[in-house]
Amino acid sequence: MFHSKDSRDTAPDATAVAALTRTAAQTLTEQLAERFAARIRDRLLAPGARLPSVRQCAAQHGLNPSTVVAAYDLLLAQGLVEARPHRGFFVRERAPLRDADAAAPAAAPAALRRAAPLSAATLIRGMFHPSGSLPQPGMGVLPPEWLESSFMPAAVRKVSGQKALAESSLRYGEPMGDGHLRRVLAARLQSLGLPADPTQIITTVGATHALDIVSRTLLKPGDAVMVEEPGWAVEFARLDALGMRILPVPRGPAGPDLAVMARYCEAHAPKLFVSVSVLHNPTGYCLSPASAHRVLQLAQQHDFHIVEDDTYSHIAPEHATRMSVLDGLRRTIYVSGFAKILAPNWRVGYLVAPPELTERLLDTKLLATLTTPSLLERALAHCIESGQLRRHAERIRTRLDAARSRSVKLAQAAGCRFVAEPSGLFGWVDTGVDTEALAQRMLDEDYLIAPGALFHAARAPSTLMRINFATTQDAAFWKVFRRLVAS
Amino acid sequence: MFHSKDSRDTAPDATAVAALTRTAAQTLTEQLAERFAARIRDRLLAPGARLPSVRQCAAQHGLNPSTVVAAYDLLLAQGLVEARPHRGFFVRERAPLRDADAAAPAAAPAALRRAAPLSAATLIRGMFHPSGSLPQPGMGVLPPEWLESSFMPAAVRKVSGQKALAESSLRYGEPMGDGHLRRVLAARLQSLGLPADPTQIITTVGATHALDIVSRTLLKPGDAVMVEEPGWAVEFARLDALGMRILPVPRGPAGPDLAVMARYCEAHAPKLFVSVSVLHNPTGYCLSPASAHRVLQLAQQHDFHIVEDDTYSHIAPEHATRMSVLDGLRRTIYVSGFAKILAPNWRVGYLVAPPELTERLLDTKLLATLTTPSLLERALAHCIESGQLRRHAERIRTRLDAARSRSVKLAQAAGCRFVAEPSGLFGWVDTGVDTEALAQRMLDEDYLIAPGALFHAARAPSTLMRINFATTQDAAFWKVFRRLVAS
Repeated sequence: MFHSKDSRDTAPDATAVAALTRTAAQTLTEQLAERFAARIRDRLLAPGARLPSVRQCAAQHGLNPSTVVAAYDLLLAQGLVEARPHRGFFVRERAPLRDADAAAPAAAPAALRRAAPLSAATLIRGMFHPSGSLPQPGMGVLPPEWLESSFMPAAVRKVSGQKALAESSLRYGEPMGDGHLRRVLAARLQSLGLPADPTQIITTVGATHALDIVSRTLLKPGDAVMVEEPGWAVEFARLDALGMRILPVPRGPAGPDLAVMARYCEAHAPKLFVSVSVLHNPTGYCLSPASAHRVLQLAQQHDFHIVEDDTYSHIAPEHATRMSVLDGLRRTIYVSGFAKILAPNWRVGYLVAPPELTERLLDTKLLATLTTPSLLERALAHCIESGQLRRHAERIRTRLDAARSRSVKLAQAAGCRFVAEPSGLFGWVDTGVDTEALAQRMLDEDYLIAPGALFHAARAPSTLMRINFATTQDAAFWKVFRRLVAS
Repeated sequence: MFHSKDSRDTAPDATAVAALTRTAAQTLTEQLAERFAARIRDRLLAPGARLPSVRQCAAQHGLNPSTVVAAYDLLLAQGLVEARPHRGFFVRERAPLRDADAAAPAAAPAALRRAAPLSAATLIRGMFHPSGSLPQPGMGVLPPEWLESSFMPAAVRKVSGQKALAESSLRYGEPMGDGHLRRVLAARLQSLGLPADPTQIITTVGATHALDIVSRTLLKPGDAVMVEEPGWAVEFARLDALGMRILPVPRGPAGPDLAVMARYCEAHAPKLFVSVSVLHNPTGYCLSPASAHRVLQLAQQHDFHIVEDDTYSHIAPEHATRMSVLDGLRRTIYVSGFAKILAPNWRVGYLVAPPELTERLLDTKLLATLTTPSLLERALAHCIESGQLRRHAERIRTRLDAARSRSVKLAQAAGCRFVAEPSGLFGWVDTGVDTEALAQRMLDEDYLIAPGALFHAARAPSTLMRINFATTQDAAFWKVFRRLVAS
């Protein structure tokens, strides 16, 4: 937890202090208050949690105790915390209503009065608020400086002249997505051994949106869906929010546990299996051809669809096995995107579906967002077509291989045990301590880590942690990690 | 229907012929086949529908009958139509499976074997495939030439230099949306009398996505939701796809029918009311202050939320009444976007919510798309901040006023009766004939119209039609309209 009884023995941390003095527009008091406020908003500090004592906090951030008192007073005035005599400051149960609302509490609908549970979504939200400029070992993307290129801005320039911009921007555009990009993607898929017509491809707001569209189209609330475990928190949380019954399937080095899947099929008649075949998140496992074949057999026998999330395709080993390829897109839907290799914020992803499903999937896209922005889709098409994205991906793979070697050594030296053979972008390690509690304390040092609990359908204490090899190759992070694990 | 017994008497239409000879890359046969194929894919020609006879089709398009025969043969070869001896060509019940699939029909899951119903979504999809370059009276946006400006490309240039692009593109970005845009929007809302903090604003993939997020967050399948009728097809179709019970509320000139709403509240305990207060689509009605007050009273009394879709805010009359303003965003959520005034394809919209709802709404956004593209959000912020969007909107309003005067006269001369006082972008007219059948025949003349059935929760034959004033001010459209209505 944030409030650690040992932190009072910790010397003020230079990094934390630096983070608090960087901007000149705010006083230190305001900065400290804002830091706590952000954590409370993001529910990284849960309702009922105690703030560190004034002395602790002052020591930790190298601040004068009066600055901390002023910051806590600010939080108190904002209604975010409450003071309990002789006990300290505690996060309030609910964010305060505004004055006008407080006067008429009956106005808040009943559904809102219950306190929101500390959901996976809130942990995920925390992952999108990286503090400071330190490398973030918990993030799922490559650091910006790795992604930087000159061809991407050139591609944007190419599509943003007055005439080109008018063409792409001033109509709604094609519901399936930019035609040029879909043709370019079809050619790319061909090279992966996945022949698909551009009319089978639908562009989306990132791979996440593609997975959302597939779930909304193929499932109805209460349906059973199999998801690999460990797996990505956003997938679990979304299926849960959509009201699906999640059946977690243990993922091993060669593939999902087929015996478990077979039992689920008998007992629950699942409609869908969600799988990351290649460079599985968080383990880095790649599906074996035999496993792929057997999963497809099971799908045929028990009449379920498979959505294959190939988010890591650009850093994948050559000749990796994909179920969509074996299946020829008959009961598989292939999903991928460009957040891991080009531009996380462009939010360009796509799905490739059997012809008889595209119409329904397209309807779901239309009803959710109408179309998607062509400007970025066209720029992306140029990046792919010129071959520059492919060469960029080759450079990234080489760089990642080097980073992985360094990170693995550092992690092992810090006492981490690799649960899965290191591969791809992520390492899946056992730290020996509860990583959710560790994550809260690492945040104080401005490091975001990804605790094992994030990767399980039902969050439970875990000593596992996912590390991003690109952002764990410097000794500074591991030094802090070792100190906190040992303390 | 597409196949009209009268069309054989129609002289070859110059426009249709022009459309068929414009591109040189395809033969006339291929172009004609592709035109039919597109309508079959979009289900504008439904399974079982008969294609026009060869003679009819040849006459209509000014083509040699052998060209039509060759085109129909092509459709036959593609498996899109079937020939019935002595009766002609008919659209096949299902799009054909590919060869490999045809050999193993058991592979297609049961859920897919049933023929998809002709849903509102398919009609909507048709609206996003405008054929040719004629003005499209059925579309809901201004024509591209109205939207063209020099400040929009300039704003894009401003945010797409190498450094700016790296900053906005190479990280996931803020889940709530670009901070600069949210601050600019807060200032704009202030000027509408709607004071909101940037932390209450969440950007979305167009207003459609905002409405989707609100529905997914506040409703669960089976919940009752009140929607104004007539209303926009996408809203009905989405709520239906989400499994909600839709309660249509008749919309009158001053507002929704309060007696009907009160009865619904007693009988169904609806959770949400979806409303377009200002320049209601399709009627153009604006909510009266008294109606707004009474709807809010009802919401308080029966504990439901209101989502106020202010899509037409940029062309709205000054001092128009908005429920969010009266309510101070306590149980209202305000939604708007820029598709009607700047760039339909940019897909930048936003929602503004009561503080206690923003966290849950943000979670829904995160789970559906993670973040939204900052590049376009930042460019939009520049367009607003410079005042250029406001001046552009003023020019558009003036131009629309002039177009409306002309269109109204032409529509009335063509025998249309205005059901609602002409205002804003849309006219809601009674044509005296079934507009869904008319729409199919207008398509043959390359005009897309919006039949009344599109605006009703349960599609039923309607003689009403929505016209876009910006695209119905030329006599050519009305000439075709009169001919088809009379025939």
